[in-house]
Amino acid sequence: MSQVFLASRNPKKLEELLRILAEVVPDIEVLGLDDVAPYDEPAETEATFEGNALLKARAGVEATGLPSLADDSGLCVDALNGMPGVLSARWAGTAKDDAANNRLLLEQLADVPDDRRGAEFRCAVAFCRPGGVEDVVFGEMRGVVIRELRGSGGFGYDVVFVPDGETRTSAEMPAAEKDLISHRGKSLRAVAPLVAAALG
Amino acid sequence: MSQVFLASRNPKKLEELLRILAEVVPDIEVLGLDDVAPYDEPAETEATFEGNALLKARAGVEATGLPSLADDSGLCVDALNGMPGVLSARWAGTAKDDAANNRLLLEQLADVPDDRRGAEFRCAVAFCRPGGVEDVVFGEMRGVVIRELRGSGGFGYDVVFVPDGETRTSAEMPAAEKDLISHRGKSLRAVAPLVAAALG
Repeated sequence: MSQVFLASRNPKKLEELLRILAEVVPDIEVLGLDDVAPYDEPAETEATFEGNALLKARAGVEATGLPSLADDSGLCVDALNGMPGVLSARWAGTAKDDAANNRLLLEQLADVPDDRRGAEFRCAVAFCRPGGVEDVVFGEMRGVVIRELRGSGGFGYDVVFVPDGETRTSAEMPAAEKDLISHRGKSLRAVAPLVAAALG
Repeated sequence: MSQVFLASRNPKKLEELLRILAEVVPDIEVLGLDDVAPYDEPAETEATFEGNALLKARAGVEATGLPSLADDSGLCVDALNGMPGVLSARWAGTAKDDAANNRLLLEQLADVPDDRRGAEFRCAVAFCRPGGVEDVVFGEMRGVVIRELRGSGGFGYDVVFVPDGETRTSAEMPAAEKDLISHRGKSLRAVAPLVAAALG
């Protein structure tokens, strides 16, 4: 059993990572923050997804001694100059309140016409190993922000985002189908061979 | 008595404009939206301050037949990639709620360190005359976003903004002193000679 640590306590992220890594590393075990001794998690104070992912993966290595993954991702909206970006999870001020974040985003974009509602999800995944080897990989998914909430899958802004080429929101897509095109799916598939090589 | 129309019903903006224009055009009368027959005000749907100012000034000319001024302005925060920008007045979603906007902005910037809290107020003033002559002028005021609300003057984000070279927020500065350095003061002083020439 190979262990890798993912610096997250979001069960949906842990599931998603396991689903993708298991294809490449069949006997992998993904430990999350709730599976290890508590440690001081760094605040996500960096100005980039890459910076925050590295902060968290380095802290994971230090705390667990395991090869550690961390991601930072968010929705970059054209009409908001790329924001909420690194502030996606706390856009409405209160931490991690998806409903409040989505409500605020739709209100901010209320007067933005249909042809200016482009956006993309971006994800950076950092993979840090004991000894100091570090990689960062990226993934993105372009689409548009619609004007209402649709769907019950996914999390975060999935309910207001329709990927290019789709009519469904990413919250209306089955998880496996979303993985194929999603920012996180792409970056996790990009990091999977690196994890396999490190654990192999 | 020379009349000019300012497409605003904000008494503080009308006052500020009169204060500045009166130095250049002593007998000027500034009419606001509440002084003229109601008309369909255009929504501020443009992506730039200039675009919104022009929309509003053109509509003013059409509705009143008077030389018409309109401004659009906002706070452009470095750590938010220049937002709230054109969405400054409705950043918290609900229209023109200064308290909600300031609360949201401070919460969004809660984890942004002191050396990355730069921002600038920007203003575009459009001056449109019957017959189609149009000018747009600009002004800006750089500073930082602090971590609490201070002062009772000004409006909007003045309570959280300390201009470069100042220790007071722009809400703690006497109006006349703020006018000398403010984005709106600069752009109104830049447009004043154009107004004087058009009305002379």
